[in-house]
Amino acid sequence: MKKYLLSPGPTPVPEEILQIMSEPMVHHRTPAFKAMVGQAIEGLKYVFQTENDVLIFSASGTGAMEGAVSNVLNKGEKAIIIRNGKFAERWGEIAEKYGIESLYVDLPWGTVGQPATLDNLLKENPDVKAVYTQLTETSTGVVMPVKELGEIVSKTDALLVIDAISGLGGQEFYMDDWNVDICVAGSQKGLMLPPGHAYAAISEKAWTKIEKCTQPNYYFDWKLYRKKLATNTDPFTGSVLHIKGLLKAIEIIKEDGIQTRFNRYRNLATACRAAIKALGLEMFAETPCDVVTAVKVPKTVDGLALVKKMRDEYGFTIAGGQAGVKGKIFRIAHMGYIERFDIIAVISVLEMVLHDLGWKFEWGAGLSAAQKILAEEYK
Amino acid sequence: MKKYLLSPGPTPVPEEILQIMSEPMVHHRTPAFKAMVGQAIEGLKYVFQTENDVLIFSASGTGAMEGAVSNVLNKGEKAIIIRNGKFAERWGEIAEKYGIESLYVDLPWGTVGQPATLDNLLKENPDVKAVYTQLTETSTGVVMPVKELGEIVSKTDALLVIDAISGLGGQEFYMDDWNVDICVAGSQKGLMLPPGHAYAAISEKAWTKIEKCTQPNYYFDWKLYRKKLATNTDPFTGSVLHIKGLLKAIEIIKEDGIQTRFNRYRNLATACRAAIKALGLEMFAETPCDVVTAVKVPKTVDGLALVKKMRDEYGFTIAGGQAGVKGKIFRIAHMGYIERFDIIAVISVLEMVLHDLGWKFEWGAGLSAAQKILAEEYK
Repeated sequence: MKKYLLSPGPTPVPEEILQIMSEPMVHHRTPAFKAMVGQAIEGLKYVFQTENDVLIFSASGTGAMEGAVSNVLNKGEKAIIIRNGKFAERWGEIAEKYGIESLYVDLPWGTVGQPATLDNLLKENPDVKAVYTQLTETSTGVVMPVKELGEIVSKTDALLVIDAISGLGGQEFYMDDWNVDICVAGSQKGLMLPPGHAYAAISEKAWTKIEKCTQPNYYFDWKLYRKKLATNTDPFTGSVLHIKGLLKAIEIIKEDGIQTRFNRYRNLATACRAAIKALGLEMFAETPCDVVTAVKVPKTVDGLALVKKMRDEYGFTIAGGQAGVKGKIFRIAHMGYIERFDIIAVISVLEMVLHDLGWKFEWGAGLSAAQKILAEEYK
Repeated sequence: MKKYLLSPGPTPVPEEILQIMSEPMVHHRTPAFKAMVGQAIEGLKYVFQTENDVLIFSASGTGAMEGAVSNVLNKGEKAIIIRNGKFAERWGEIAEKYGIESLYVDLPWGTVGQPATLDNLLKENPDVKAVYTQLTETSTGVVMPVKELGEIVSKTDALLVIDAISGLGGQEFYMDDWNVDICVAGSQKGLMLPPGHAYAAISEKAWTKIEKCTQPNYYFDWKLYRKKLATNTDPFTGSVLHIKGLLKAIEIIKEDGIQTRFNRYRNLATACRAAIKALGLEMFAETPCDVVTAVKVPKTVDGLALVKKMRDEYGFTIAGGQAGVKGKIFRIAHMGYIERFDIIAVISVLEMVLHDLGWKFEWGAGLSAAQKILAEEYK
């Protein structure tokens, strides 16, 4: 049975990248390899839309999230954490480990809240050092109003820290224009690579704060990585394969142009949403993002069975709900190397599985709705 | 020009592993993938020669080293660190970051000291919680007397923590029989994989101490990884590629048998040493290990030029000296997927480059000396 991967990470890796990753091993301290690292960093700046420093870590994205706390805030310092999903909660868990005094903005999963809430909270707490949130929250499929948050935070001394692990390269985002101070990302989503690489882009405003931070860390010591930027070296033995794959991924992204890719994923998301509506289903996210569509499972349908049947009987790996929404939502990714006809295919199998599970709708209704939108020009 | 990689990490990756790593991406939360993780952990236990828990991290080996401090010792607790090379010094750097009170046994690089020194130090400091050293110190090519150190430390309440990053799978080592409490390793040496995976094997005695540790950590929170062992899952999105490659590597190692592999690398090391002697050169290590041969550069030869010429003019990547011994030594690896005829080839090119740089010897003297030993049975 042919296999399709439409989960929000890991995502499919283009064949030409897989091929590069199977080339013979090279040494990580040669001039040729250092040149590749330098080129990869320049390419990442384009993807982040920033002039800031970009650091590369051999780790899962969570490693970069941890660094964005442990390098930034001292014990007892205050942070605001907007908590509206699994990865938002992760910011909180990390902050607790490091003894940060967190002010939580707790919101129901699937919602995003009002920027004004943050504005007021910052006014009431001028000693807040950083605000943590997501670009897109993978667990709920929302996009956060990062531009608006950036306008608010940039007027204060606090830093705006964005987890763009699932959003980078897919969801519209301009780090510098939107006044984001720290942005972290991972390899296995919009960048079309296997898991194993994490990234952090860091503004000068953030570096000033980082210089004053004394929390213990070694493998994720950002000051050490920054020193090594001058020679394009990893302080440790980094993932050679990921650097080589990353260069190819950046080449693909640049060939399209980042704006074209933003438009493409918006088109895929719009098509998905139209199909969901046409099948009589409801979206879970208040403000749905462009990289993953989270859908409410109707009360009469078994949500766990839906995801399992798609995988085991039809070969499609999508994602179910995590934690509190387990069995209550399913999620279809449209990020990285997922394109139009993958969406057509996943809607087709969704119709088949919904039918198997007793949901009533007109055969092809989802497909027709998606088709109309996917046929539109998105460039 | 054909390229040869004989550096002590990264090391060459067997073609069949590279091929597996270029297979289409799979999801990390499927039953099939979890079964692979479980199998990989069982295989690692064989390589470590242990019944203890083994944890897998997507990181460079240094990430596992950091975890072996941050999960084990609280601020202000005492550790003994045997400091006789670059990676030994890394234990010290990490310990300093975490506020550990380190008692250093400082030794000249290339030497290993006396086990009795440790015995006395432990008797004088019964409050020492852990002893940190290497199995093989990559920067100097020594093998540490781990078995003897294990006999000493196991009689106390302290833990013996071994960095086997370059040694595991090549240098003779039996974690349980030798009373080692924590052993860390990496993917890119004896395990024949690309860099990106780190491992830690942890005894029950160590877990008891770890349970009482309160240092901040998240990505390297060993207690969290231990909980996930029950379901064979990574707490985060781990490197899918490395798990798949690791299974193949373990298959290769098991097919040989670990003892056969220990014997093989000993044979390669003995051959290298014989060649070095026949060429009139001297070993750097007091007790040379079986996975990397460190050689003193004669005063009349330019050590930096030697390494550079081998790489740029002949296609052979070996390693020079690091930090204090830069330009003063060179290092040839014989670990992982480096076998007999790679050693013959590197001795051949070493003769050519030594000749280019004005060193006097009889053509083929190194080759003949190595050949005699490599022709011996090592099984």
